[in-house]
Amino acid sequence: MQEVRAVVYGVGAMGSIVTRLLLEKGVKIVGAVGRSPEKVGKDLGEVAGLDRHIGVEVVDDHNKAFEGGADIAIVCVSSYLKAMHDHFAICLEHGTNVVTIEEETVYPWSTSPELANELDHLAKANGVTLAASGAQDVFWLYLVSTLLGAAHKVDEVSGRCMWNVDDYGPEVASHLRIGDQVEDFERHVREFGWPEFVARQTLEALVSELGLSISAIDSSVEPVSSQKPIFCRSLDRTIPPGHLIGTVDTTKVRTAEGPRFSFSMEGRVYTVDQTDMNEWHVTGEPNLHLRNDRASYHFTTCTSVVNRIPDVINAAPGLVSLDQLGKPNYRHQIQN
Amino acid sequence: MQEVRAVVYGVGAMGSIVTRLLLEKGVKIVGAVGRSPEKVGKDLGEVAGLDRHIGVEVVDDHNKAFEGGADIAIVCVSSYLKAMHDHFAICLEHGTNVVTIEEETVYPWSTSPELANELDHLAKANGVTLAASGAQDVFWLYLVSTLLGAAHKVDEVSGRCMWNVDDYGPEVASHLRIGDQVEDFERHVREFGWPEFVARQTLEALVSELGLSISAIDSSVEPVSSQKPIFCRSLDRTIPPGHLIGTVDTTKVRTAEGPRFSFSMEGRVYTVDQTDMNEWHVTGEPNLHLRNDRASYHFTTCTSVVNRIPDVINAAPGLVSLDQLGKPNYRHQIQN
Repeated sequence: MQEVRAVVYGVGAMGSIVTRLLLEKGVKIVGAVGRSPEKVGKDLGEVAGLDRHIGVEVVDDHNKAFEGGADIAIVCVSSYLKAMHDHFAICLEHGTNVVTIEEETVYPWSTSPELANELDHLAKANGVTLAASGAQDVFWLYLVSTLLGAAHKVDEVSGRCMWNVDDYGPEVASHLRIGDQVEDFERHVREFGWPEFVARQTLEALVSELGLSISAIDSSVEPVSSQKPIFCRSLDRTIPPGHLIGTVDTTKVRTAEGPRFSFSMEGRVYTVDQTDMNEWHVTGEPNLHLRNDRASYHFTTCTSVVNRIPDVINAAPGLVSLDQLGKPNYRHQIQN
Repeated sequence: MQEVRAVVYGVGAMGSIVTRLLLEKGVKIVGAVGRSPEKVGKDLGEVAGLDRHIGVEVVDDHNKAFEGGADIAIVCVSSYLKAMHDHFAICLEHGTNVVTIEEETVYPWSTSPELANELDHLAKANGVTLAASGAQDVFWLYLVSTLLGAAHKVDEVSGRCMWNVDDYGPEVASHLRIGDQVEDFERHVREFGWPEFVARQTLEALVSELGLSISAIDSSVEPVSSQKPIFCRSLDRTIPPGHLIGTVDTTKVRTAEGPRFSFSMEGRVYTVDQTDMNEWHVTGEPNLHLRNDRASYHFTTCTSVVNRIPDVINAAPGLVSLDQLGKPNYRHQIQN
């Protein structure tokens, strides 16, 4: 077993958590890529809020970050494959495997087939793997798929989860249009549509992992408002009654073989008594049920991506969607 | 993909359910082995309570059951490897893979190493696989292992489940000494000990699947009684207050690497409002939680063993304990 050498690519909130986890798991960090002027030039230990320097400078020149050679880059920058394409390409061209928290890469084949195929070819040409993980890996894909190992006949698989908008900062809160009047939100969705996100890719990955074929897929969004004012930490203001405090994103899938799937993700500003949860019901023979309280999606997105490092290093070259990566595993230490 | 040809070995309550599941999944049943005079000579469809004959005679001569050649035998006869050894050996010597609900075979390496190694060699000599599945496959092994894919640091993994003694007939109820005065039960355990069962093999399989090493293992049993009389269906009598209505079997494991494990299985006569459940807590970073209501262990033991058929046929020859079989999968149909 050998030490794994990693580049931390993106040193925001998630990259900072990932940095600590990597060090505690015995991974050698050999480079760090950042962009913001107040981080570039500083030691990654300082930027990540550790109490020590670790001898790795945050640089904005990727050639410098990769110059020592790395087994893997952990990429935590932004969402959507379109925004992330060039970042992934840089890592792959350096001959470095990539594991990312970017959600579309979980299963990009139907929402961004051209970008996905291009990156698949680029990864293969460089003999390395690009894959994504995050909370969906354990909670919405492989726990559900494993539960279905106890099913004889599946009529419907129905999941719902709840995540805290305030865990992800002002960018995500604005993206969800938190604080909008509900009528304004609904008008916006009618006029401009609403991006399919996470729920769609997760269900597509699940259906693929089960060996079934999608015959119809449909996504929708519903506004969530409160009858009481709720303080939104990430926007630092109180959202009045009747204004948007969150959304429920739902994707429904029909399969050629018969089983139906639906998954609803409620992202909202939490009241004090709410925690991240995950609940799935299977209707069939027998009926099955699974629930996770305290799923800590923000943190388990970081733990999941770090635990995936050996799988990604050892996977076949190419863009490997999460359904093809096999079950996630606990790693007491990370070596290869 | 080809049709799978199966022998149903054991045509009691579980073998009868398995028979229906196999037929509904497209498996071709080519033989059936039974013992009791009221079943031998009858059609398996009739013995299994189906509304039709399926053209397979229940025989007590295994040579006859296997003479057409089968890919796999589904063996549902009894518990403990010692009792099952000869049955497994018969199937393996016929060059037939075996999947069984016998619980010790899940992970037999420490409780019955000699029998396990002998069967391992016999399976390898015949180029076939022996493996076990059941409700523990999904609920107590792979759901827990998958959940731990979201763990950074594990201090303690603690599970408990509850199963209904009345789901398994008078033999299991007597084995658990249901109806004993609690003091008599406790004296019996002090004098004769109590067999380690299921909880032990399940935890051993889990720790092995996680890549950790057991440094200490300890099993214990506690009596369960009720303050009210409870009717025991399988014994067809009412258990008075202060008498045994069940047991809690607990196994605790320490590992060389640090994480601790415990698993408590409460097998009891249910009151009307109770259902099979499964709940696990992980203490560490982060704390994690998983719960299944309506686990239907009696039935999901049958569904799990049937869904494992392709895995067992395709596994390397030998006795393959459940930790080595990979995650369980839903099978819409079973082909190979």
